[in-house]
Amino acid sequence: MRRWLLPEHIEDVLPAEARAIERLRRGILDLFERAGYELVAPPLLEFVESLLSGTGKDLDLATFKLVDRISGRTMGVRADHTPQVARIDAHLLNRQGVARLCYCGSVLHTVPSGITNSREPLQIGAELYGHAGVEADIEIARLMIAALKATGVAKVHVDLGNPAIYRALVGDAGLNAEDAEVVFHAVQQKNAAEAKGAAVLTGLHGGIDTIERARKALPAKPAIGAALDALARVAQACRAAGAETSIDLAELGGFNYESGIVFAAFTPGSPDAIARGGRYDEVGASFGRARPATGFTMDLRQLAALAPEAAKRGAILAPCIEDAALAAEVARLREAGEVVIDDLPGHEAARDELGCDRKLEKKDGKWRVTS
Amino acid sequence: MRRWLLPEHIEDVLPAEARAIERLRRGILDLFERAGYELVAPPLLEFVESLLSGTGKDLDLATFKLVDRISGRTMGVRADHTPQVARIDAHLLNRQGVARLCYCGSVLHTVPSGITNSREPLQIGAELYGHAGVEADIEIARLMIAALKATGVAKVHVDLGNPAIYRALVGDAGLNAEDAEVVFHAVQQKNAAEAKGAAVLTGLHGGIDTIERARKALPAKPAIGAALDALARVAQACRAAGAETSIDLAELGGFNYESGIVFAAFTPGSPDAIARGGRYDEVGASFGRARPATGFTMDLRQLAALAPEAAKRGAILAPCIEDAALAAEVARLREAGEVVIDDLPGHEAARDELGCDRKLEKKDGKWRVTS
Repeated sequence: MRRWLLPEHIEDVLPAEARAIERLRRGILDLFERAGYELVAPPLLEFVESLLSGTGKDLDLATFKLVDRISGRTMGVRADHTPQVARIDAHLLNRQGVARLCYCGSVLHTVPSGITNSREPLQIGAELYGHAGVEADIEIARLMIAALKATGVAKVHVDLGNPAIYRALVGDAGLNAEDAEVVFHAVQQKNAAEAKGAAVLTGLHGGIDTIERARKALPAKPAIGAALDALARVAQACRAAGAETSIDLAELGGFNYESGIVFAAFTPGSPDAIARGGRYDEVGASFGRARPATGFTMDLRQLAALAPEAAKRGAILAPCIEDAALAAEVARLREAGEVVIDDLPGHEAARDELGCDRKLEKKDGKWRVTS
Repeated sequence: MRRWLLPEHIEDVLPAEARAIERLRRGILDLFERAGYELVAPPLLEFVESLLSGTGKDLDLATFKLVDRISGRTMGVRADHTPQVARIDAHLLNRQGVARLCYCGSVLHTVPSGITNSREPLQIGAELYGHAGVEADIEIARLMIAALKATGVAKVHVDLGNPAIYRALVGDAGLNAEDAEVVFHAVQQKNAAEAKGAAVLTGLHGGIDTIERARKALPAKPAIGAALDALARVAQACRAAGAETSIDLAELGGFNYESGIVFAAFTPGSPDAIARGGRYDEVGASFGRARPATGFTMDLRQLAALAPEAAKRGAILAPCIEDAALAAEVARLREAGEVVIDDLPGHEAARDELGCDRKLEKKDGKWRVTS
């Protein structure tokens, strides 16, 4: 067994990728901050009761479990930030109005969510609490599109769904929990044969005109009409923000806690979604305070792989000697944003590895940068 | 059981603290980059064989273990970045000369390392590989002091030790592994009665003059003389960098893999060290390539708690209406660095929570910021 082998779907981030991720991370967090989203950082570990309450079986299966040596109870390593941030909104911030929160951190999955996916996505995302109206869905969808454009993704395509329609359809069918799960997955896989009362949804996908087709094909219920109206408004806002838009009424969201409009963003060259989001009003309920909630999440490592590579910065080689004037000049150059690397003695043969394109030399009694 | 209760020594980072941490994080990573340190991000999970190889029992006990559902093997959640970054240097980068690497990420501990400590420290640190000379220890100690000063810590005190002296003393004693561990901990706790051949070290601490006292008190071995010379040079460099300095020859480092000069930084008002570092030349050996190595690590959450609180930025409230000119002005203000928050309808009573000190209003047909 070679000691440096990593588990499958677990990778190191080496310098070039780390630089790209750090650049995107700062740009996106700045964008969030300027839209009023406050950064929070929930812990990697929580008791499973709080980490998984109000969420579905998929999230449970994706979560690594550990025993807490202090309490003897079972803890989970977070597989998603959303339930944790909902807990912070519900229990810790206790705002009466709207709360806007954002986060950036690793999550762990017991098995990868796709064959090419990492088991350690670096999630970055934003959540909006306390507003039930479609304005919140629009704000979040726009923020997602702006964040993707800020990473350098040229073309963003947003696919929109609304599980509220699915719920209105199956709500009448009186399914037990087991059957409900079969139907849920059948709809997601567009398997009309097993989708029972929701089979009609498996054919309702395509352009914006899908909304009008759905009005004709679906029962004339107020909940369904309102859900389609909301979809139309969010789709229009996405197009105005510069994203191509499509509708898929069989799209029900990821971890089965979404309750309203859901969306996934795609870009040419990437088979998987590059961002996912939606409304999940019920997650906070288990913490004693159900609040309307909508948000989106992205994997920074996936985005960094799509982003144009940033050139490595040039650097200045500085002699490794004790000299007060040299030390002052090195400090001044670094303060001004330059990379200045000490030339430790004995490594002359490997100097090229340092990537220096200039050096500090003493000329006429003064330290100067020369090329 | 209340669902929002977190495990002991596990905490959420709420907005004010998250802002402070993010500010320090960026400042320190920029400082590292400008000194030539390249960012890497090893994974949270590895097989225990690689995560713990070449490290001591303390790190093993601090590490949460998980079963990999894919391979069936035992994985650990990292409790420290140092062995992982050593693996990256040894196996992945394969530089012939010096490699400078830095990192920032969470680690998990099964039990807290101190009664007031978190089980999820947010480690930030730098490592220098490939240079055995004292110049590397000096560069790392200086970088640590510069990083601490950059966080706003006014007074930095560096306590220096050199476990090479301890190893030279006990090397002759022919102790078995069990006795060696008893002696190691006895020296660290300055328990002279159980420190056997190394008992003399428990009395050798104090100012810089301790080095001269040690020269007289310790056997005249070349290894010990060289270790004391190196200590004197690093102590001098720390003082020149603006840190108070003391010597403690009973200080043997944290996870028992340090092999040369070790140091810990303190500041008034904080009982625990605010940074720790040292030389650990042997860690890379288990990955097939033993390289000289020295580095330091800090906990950003601990540093953020010491840093002067940053005032929350003011913000501009923008009406939530569809208006192309308004949208353009909001985009322009955000681009210029302003926080602009949409005034979602129906939350007039809770507007104060948003922290806006100005608003966007239409005056004379143009959108303007007014207070």
